[in-house]
Amino acid sequence: MSSATTLKGQPLDRAALESMLRRRMFYTPSFEIYGGVSGLYDYGPPGCALQANIIDLWRKHFVLEEDMLEVDCSVLTPHEVLKTSGHVDKFADWMCKDPENGEILRADHFVEDILESRLKGDKEARGQKVEEKEEDPKKKKKKAKSTAVLLDDAVVKEYEEILAQIDNYNGEQLGELIKKYDLRNPATNRQPEPPVSFNLMFQTSIGPSSNIPGYLRPETAQGQFLNFAKLLEFNTGQMPFASASIGKSYRNEISPRGGLLRVREFLMAEIEHFVDPEGHKKHARFHEVEDIELAFLDRDTQLSGSTAVKKQTIGQAVKEGLVDNETLGYFLARIHLFLKKLGVDQTKIRFRQHMANEMAHYACDCWDAELLTSSGWIECVGCADRSAYDLSVHANKTGAPLVVRAQLDEPKVYEEWEVQIEKKKFGPLFKKNGKTIENAILATPQEELAKLAKELEETGKITVNVPGVADGKVEVSKDLVAVKWVKRVEHTREYTPNVIEPSFGIGRILYSLIEHNYWTRGTEGGDEARGVLSFPPTVAPTKVLIVPLSNNKEFTPTAHKLSQKLRSAGISSRVDDSGASLGKRYSRNDELGTPFGITIDFQTVQDGTITLRERDSTRQVRADEEKILEAIKALVDDKKTWQDIESELPLFVSQEIEVAQR
Amino acid sequence: MSSATTLKGQPLDRAALESMLRRRMFYTPSFEIYGGVSGLYDYGPPGCALQANIIDLWRKHFVLEEDMLEVDCSVLTPHEVLKTSGHVDKFADWMCKDPENGEILRADHFVEDILESRLKGDKEARGQKVEEKEEDPKKKKKKAKSTAVLLDDAVVKEYEEILAQIDNYNGEQLGELIKKYDLRNPATNRQPEPPVSFNLMFQTSIGPSSNIPGYLRPETAQGQFLNFAKLLEFNTGQMPFASASIGKSYRNEISPRGGLLRVREFLMAEIEHFVDPEGHKKHARFHEVEDIELAFLDRDTQLSGSTAVKKQTIGQAVKEGLVDNETLGYFLARIHLFLKKLGVDQTKIRFRQHMANEMAHYACDCWDAELLTSSGWIECVGCADRSAYDLSVHANKTGAPLVVRAQLDEPKVYEEWEVQIEKKKFGPLFKKNGKTIENAILATPQEELAKLAKELEETGKITVNVPGVADGKVEVSKDLVAVKWVKRVEHTREYTPNVIEPSFGIGRILYSLIEHNYWTRGTEGGDEARGVLSFPPTVAPTKVLIVPLSNNKEFTPTAHKLSQKLRSAGISSRVDDSGASLGKRYSRNDELGTPFGITIDFQTVQDGTITLRERDSTRQVRADEEKILEAIKALVDDKKTWQDIESELPLFVSQEIEVAQR
Repeated sequence: MSSATTLKGQPLDRAALESMLRRRMFYTPSFEIYGGVSGLYDYGPPGCALQANIIDLWRKHFVLEEDMLEVDCSVLTPHEVLKTSGHVDKFADWMCKDPENGEILRADHFVEDILESRLKGDKEARGQKVEEKEEDPKKKKKKAKSTAVLLDDAVVKEYEEILAQIDNYNGEQLGELIKKYDLRNPATNRQPEPPVSFNLMFQTSIGPSSNIPGYLRPETAQGQFLNFAKLLEFNTGQMPFASASIGKSYRNEISPRGGLLRVREFLMAEIEHFVDPEGHKKHARFHEVEDIELAFLDRDTQLSGSTAVKKQTIGQAVKEGLVDNETLGYFLARIHLFLKKLGVDQTKIRFRQHMANEMAHYACDCWDAELLTSSGWIECVGCADRSAYDLSVHANKTGAPLVVRAQLDEPKVYEEWEVQIEKKKFGPLFKKNGKTIENAILATPQEELAKLAKELEETGKITVNVPGVADGKVEVSKDLVAVKWVKRVEHTREYTPNVIEPSFGIGRILYSLIEHNYWTRGTEGGDEARGVLSFPPTVAPTKVLIVPLSNNKEFTPTAHKLSQKLRSAGISSRVDDSGASLGKRYSRNDELGTPFGITIDFQTVQDGTITLRERDSTRQVRADEEKILEAIKALVDDKKTWQDIESELPLFVSQEIEVAQR
Repeated sequence: MSSATTLKGQPLDRAALESMLRRRMFYTPSFEIYGGVSGLYDYGPPGCALQANIIDLWRKHFVLEEDMLEVDCSVLTPHEVLKTSGHVDKFADWMCKDPENGEILRADHFVEDILESRLKGDKEARGQKVEEKEEDPKKKKKKAKSTAVLLDDAVVKEYEEILAQIDNYNGEQLGELIKKYDLRNPATNRQPEPPVSFNLMFQTSIGPSSNIPGYLRPETAQGQFLNFAKLLEFNTGQMPFASASIGKSYRNEISPRGGLLRVREFLMAEIEHFVDPEGHKKHARFHEVEDIELAFLDRDTQLSGSTAVKKQTIGQAVKEGLVDNETLGYFLARIHLFLKKLGVDQTKIRFRQHMANEMAHYACDCWDAELLTSSGWIECVGCADRSAYDLSVHANKTGAPLVVRAQLDEPKVYEEWEVQIEKKKFGPLFKKNGKTIENAILATPQEELAKLAKELEETGKITVNVPGVADGKVEVSKDLVAVKWVKRVEHTREYTPNVIEPSFGIGRILYSLIEHNYWTRGTEGGDEARGVLSFPPTVAPTKVLIVPLSNNKEFTPTAHKLSQKLRSAGISSRVDDSGASLGKRYSRNDELGTPFGITIDFQTVQDGTITLRERDSTRQVRADEEKILEAIKALVDDKKTWQDIESELPLFVSQEIEVAQR
């Protein structure tokens, strides 16, 4: 049992939740009738709708709100692009092999697992109550069983410090930890072999004669970078701007576990915000968010072996230099607001800074928005400062000008020495050495040029050091070369933008959101707890359930008409005219997280009134169709609360009792 | 020059259109700064928005309208699944190799190309005007050049007949055509080698030790089939129902060409409608569509060498058996309505039936909705009857019950002979032959059982033929076996549903839609034609352009306020406050297909009125902000036409002249 809690603070029974999600087909292992493939999941109808609503909100909150340029780029990516970006060489995890049974273990998870089980054993030996530690999403292959063995206090401290910075070790260091603490695979009681690097990209080849080696992209970012010049032009040359992309990415995880939290194929939503690095990356809208308070867990705290967060406004955090710049800070706050709007529990968010060894090869700073779940703190959004890394490496490789030419407000004036060479006379005189001598003169630094100018004026020639030509010294007369003091005016400045990248793992957010909105209510007299998913109306998979009291044919036309009216108002609904009892149907509905329910009964047929039920309180109001539809529209558009509706429309009581009794 | 036309009937200049689409970043070759990879494209901001709007309309028209169960399944698919589905063995094209330069040619495209160029040469020799034949999307590697060579009339007829059914030949037949007509690769003047099969799936392997061979799915359908049992349960067991899925699929085309029309990575939207095969696949809502007239090109017409379409209502077509059943017919009509709603030119749609050799291995009938473009008729939607093929093969392979158990309205009563065997006595008596003898008796057909019953009653024993036991005849006495006339009542019927599959290639629809809505208008006095994309407001990438008259700071607050108001009404807009002239900005806008434009000028600052411009007519009205916003909402929601607006709000003329002059 984990120490995670439901929306109402009840202990969260993950097995019960998972069985409910399975029963309601939120998601399901892919290819299950073929035995499944780990790390691959299909979304069923409610999961698919939930995902679409999260994406829709994301698009409104980020893309539309800030006029971002959304693009949709290819997943198939040729080798050369990912070689240049560094992914072919560096996008890898450390794995080690068990020498006896050949089992493949992810090295960091293995170390973490064994140390945690030893700490647990120590607690048992000390007779302390063992609260199961929140499980990490990077779950273990064969969970190491703890045995009650007492450890030295100093050893306990060492283990705890290692665990607090487990993401900070490289392969060699992990290998040393395994040897130093004699960590053994529980399945064979053998130390695994030293960690080796395993590239996480799926490989394929493109074309009929397998001529182009390629990969499935591990992130959507590269496509956005490669299109930078076109996007800048589309944006009529204006900076800063952001591109955005929603699409699948792929990582061949070594041993995926933990349901939706670590998968091999996943939907990402990524923003690449391009900003001028000059002027410390200010953001024009930073003032709108500066008072928002966030929970920070910085790098130094983690390295000191602690996970205590510090609450602070983002304005203060940027001022103090905890968060490097306004643009990075602006996006951290915007991410926070997005997660809040989705319905994430505000007490279960923190922003954790990456440690030096943990950061991706392209990042110079990175903060993760982590959400607390029954699997521990889960990285759901990464917000990295990728500096000019990507644009620079692609520009260097291809020669494409991935730069911005900015008009200077005030032209810059330079004065300097300039060498002018009479090329026409140079060649005939010096023959094959001409170019070498020319280059040697041109390479002369400014401070030397002053001397040359003087020499030229005084002696009518200069003597230049040209290693390899004649005796290494060459005389050049003033009819061949001039050195002059010139004035230069620059009207533009060319720079490679820096990139701030907020990157969202939609599946992880979706799963965390489910846990944060899950709770159970007892049935009156019943012994089985009934699950409820209290999604906000905006993100709920379906907004309205329409339930005819029974499968009496008299109710069908009304159900049909209501469903059509809701549809044309853009509100998703479902009719449940199955034979099940009203209570059963509402229970199913609560499990699906549908916020509102309409009942059609015999009174409806007589006077045209219908009842509207609210999922969380199970309270109902009754009014004529038009008023109820208006109420639903206002609720779904977040313009009214259920309290508003209760104060406006008459409560309906009798049916509620009936529902509760079932 | 092709014979394709624009929306206004002008000859369509594909080069001009493509340059415009490129300039406005509708789409662009992926990885272009690395030289690109053929068959891979990225969508820029307007293409991405257009795609999102097509998907949105699709979801409303199909998924919401019919309560389909939308799912999102994995792209990565293990080998075994696609082996069972038949794709590993049969999802292939025929390719041949040039023996000299090793060039890979797609066999059918090669034959088509050479025959077409010979026909063209013949026309030239006859002195006829050569209208460039509409190009096929399956475009050619090196376009065969026509030379004026006269052909026999009989040969011309043969070529035309071959071309009309080019999709009907298998590899062997294509090889014969190459030999018979001595078709040579123009690049080398050599006959290519005989066609060989090339599987179109991208291969990869899943897991750290490359233990699971897999593919990128070539269609979204398999994931839906594998989930059939869960979906049926989610639908509370009710039939018929449909699942639906929107997602990327992958085909390793031999030589992709023709822009978005033949690509290696593409977005699909697929519906799998599951229906009881009993009762000839009636559809409850068929009456709603039966009067819709479609243009049919059936199998027999094509085989006879013609491409003449027949116009008919779908009701009539199903009645006459041209279209096999109501469900298939219902979806053809719904596809037609969807394409119409998108803004596809009604004179450029036909429904073409597949020929026997052309159909996918799983299909028993298939109709394509084809759209006419400058590349000829393009298959944009396939509507196949996959019968029970897929569910059956997966059920057979895995043992999973992919069936429906239906309650019978009236229980079925059977009466028949039944053999009852005393197993306890059988073994001890017959020893190792027991099972063989038992099976021999149980395998006895009904008509024989009657005789055995009589024999048993009369003689107290039966003699059974059991090859391989004793002398092939075994006597069994009545204490070991009984044969009785029994009555059986069945309350349920078990069946494997048939599948009707409408399958949409979103990229092809998107490109065709662009061509169908493209036209040019001359500039007054100018010599350059200005492109316009007349998308219906619902699908247009952006709905409103906001243009301040100049970059005067006075206009900024109004532009900002309008953009916020539109956003909160769910209407996408863009502000263009670049320094370009008003005329230039409206031109850019017309090229992007934005239906409405708002101008903010000095009068706005004085009296709060703004002008609203309609893209196609370039006419404008002027009114206060509130009225204009109301008008836009009504226009975008398709509740009013521009004519309605013109009759309600005062025309604005002066500015229009100014715009036209630029």
